[in-house]
Amino acid sequence: MIRAIDFKEDILYLIDQRRLPIHEELFECKTHSEVEYAIREMVVRGAPAIGATAAYGVVLAAKEFMNDNKEDFLGKMNDALDFINKSRPTAVNLMWAIKRMRNKLSEYKDLDTKQIYTKLKEEADIILKEDIQTNKQMARHGNEVIPKGATILTHCNTGALATAGYGTALGVIREAHYTGKDIFVYADETRPRLQGGRLTAWELVKENIPAKLVADNAAATLIRDGKIDVILVGADRIALNGDTANKIGTFMLSVIAKRYNVPFYIVAPVTTIDFDIETGEDIEIEERSSEEVTHVFGNRVAPMGIDVYNPAFDVTPHENITGIITEEGILKPPFKESIIKIKK
Amino acid sequence: MIRAIDFKEDILYLIDQRRLPIHEELFECKTHSEVEYAIREMVVRGAPAIGATAAYGVVLAAKEFMNDNKEDFLGKMNDALDFINKSRPTAVNLMWAIKRMRNKLSEYKDLDTKQIYTKLKEEADIILKEDIQTNKQMARHGNEVIPKGATILTHCNTGALATAGYGTALGVIREAHYTGKDIFVYADETRPRLQGGRLTAWELVKENIPAKLVADNAAATLIRDGKIDVILVGADRIALNGDTANKIGTFMLSVIAKRYNVPFYIVAPVTTIDFDIETGEDIEIEERSSEEVTHVFGNRVAPMGIDVYNPAFDVTPHENITGIITEEGILKPPFKESIIKIKK
Repeated sequence: MIRAIDFKEDILYLIDQRRLPIHEELFECKTHSEVEYAIREMVVRGAPAIGATAAYGVVLAAKEFMNDNKEDFLGKMNDALDFINKSRPTAVNLMWAIKRMRNKLSEYKDLDTKQIYTKLKEEADIILKEDIQTNKQMARHGNEVIPKGATILTHCNTGALATAGYGTALGVIREAHYTGKDIFVYADETRPRLQGGRLTAWELVKENIPAKLVADNAAATLIRDGKIDVILVGADRIALNGDTANKIGTFMLSVIAKRYNVPFYIVAPVTTIDFDIETGEDIEIEERSSEEVTHVFGNRVAPMGIDVYNPAFDVTPHENITGIITEEGILKPPFKESIIKIKK
Repeated sequence: MIRAIDFKEDILYLIDQRRLPIHEELFECKTHSEVEYAIREMVVRGAPAIGATAAYGVVLAAKEFMNDNKEDFLGKMNDALDFINKSRPTAVNLMWAIKRMRNKLSEYKDLDTKQIYTKLKEEADIILKEDIQTNKQMARHGNEVIPKGATILTHCNTGALATAGYGTALGVIREAHYTGKDIFVYADETRPRLQGGRLTAWELVKENIPAKLVADNAAATLIRDGKIDVILVGADRIALNGDTANKIGTFMLSVIAKRYNVPFYIVAPVTTIDFDIETGEDIEIEERSSEEVTHVFGNRVAPMGIDVYNPAFDVTPHENITGIITEEGILKPPFKESIIKIKK
């Protein structure tokens, strides 16, 4: 099994996803600053994976400040939580994990720093473990909407690399494959960072799931020509009305899917729902550096002097979404009602 | 002025568009086989540019076979015309130029080979010259639909590099810019071959036209958010009903444009209309090699072992097209009627 995130003896080992599929290397984090860097620079990416990584960042902070007095410790921990929380703006799982760790810190603030560290470590381990369980539950629910022999289109990477393991949308694809559904996958390469071409393709090849890679521009023709039975994508943040922020290009697919009546599902854990926002208009969309478009693997592909607009995400309006596959089951429209029902 | 195609003393000089924008190099063709290679491997690309290049390929063939006896000469010329004609399947301008050269050859077949060569050279020069004039006429017609201060979205490269000079869709953009319309351009990078990111961006930077480059995935959001006033694209072949084959990704843009009521124009010379086909279903879509997706500038970006589906073009249905801007004016729906009217 692919493990994107592994914590051993106070070192967080991340598969360096910037270098895949050419190089399979581990990136080691020994401090919370290194974790913040790893999230910001996309050593690790994918909303659930970012959440779990952030949690271990808090553990590393506790390790770093363990020998300070309690007051200093709590002050520095607070700063560290804030610092990691701002590493990327769109995926709500990051804020969710930080909040959960902050609550734990608050709950055990009267223990000594060593004990607090242990409690935080336990919590991060639970977050990681829960995410895998959650993914497997989502996969089982999602598999119900996959017809035998289906051809599935997916975007970006939502697999083991994007989560603690197994994956969200790619988890459903795994489940369909391993339950003998005889599926075929088209994977969008997902410019600018090529998470589909680099990461999803890598996972599909590793597990011998029949698949073809396409340029993002080719997906619409596949959909129009009736070659796609179902579209599965992940999410970075879901509003109360079902509007969903996900990797740039998702919105485009959703419009084409709706026009040509192809089922379009979001696959995401309940932690991706932001119960504090009403609609997608309230979701901050991260704009990333020009170099992601002007360069590929460090090599310039566009001329000097050209400006770039590079939003990392877009918002798919709820009316384009057939269902939201979560660990609690498949939410159906009207999402305003189905989402509020699962709020704990 | 950028000259992608230049014929001097029996050598055809092409700007090697595979290497732009990093390297500005000329590719020299001294034989018709080198011309066939240059078209097939996309040293030169863009429907009108392919047409003019093919015409010079025929001139080079005449030069090669000039010392053969007439019968051998005509036989070899016939083979050369067929050979070049098959270098790429989708852009009809190639077939149009070859047909025009074949007619000239037939018209002058009783002259001696040296004289035939001269006549063919004259014809190729006319094709090249006419294309520039045609582009300037299209640009003037097209400029009528560009509002002052407009933001224009374009796809692929349709500029000086794609034609004998000035361009089709990018020709309209040039005209709007130079007539002081104060326009702003968003250019899709156009995977897999990045003609937007490499070539259109290069032309825009060279001429200081205000612009931003975007990943193809970002275009839909710009359209939905009301940031695009008009979309201009080129064409590789237009059917009698207005269905238009153009670079992969064009169809996707057309669906988004229609959904969000943004005017969507094709800009193409009359030579791009294939009066022999009724609808887009009759257009052969070229599928190109996997390496275009798995590699960027020769560097692998996708894992070994992944299959690829890589269509070079798609077909935009006529109902998504606001108008077809030609040198004869702007054709409007119903295209079945407006197209047949301009058939000569």
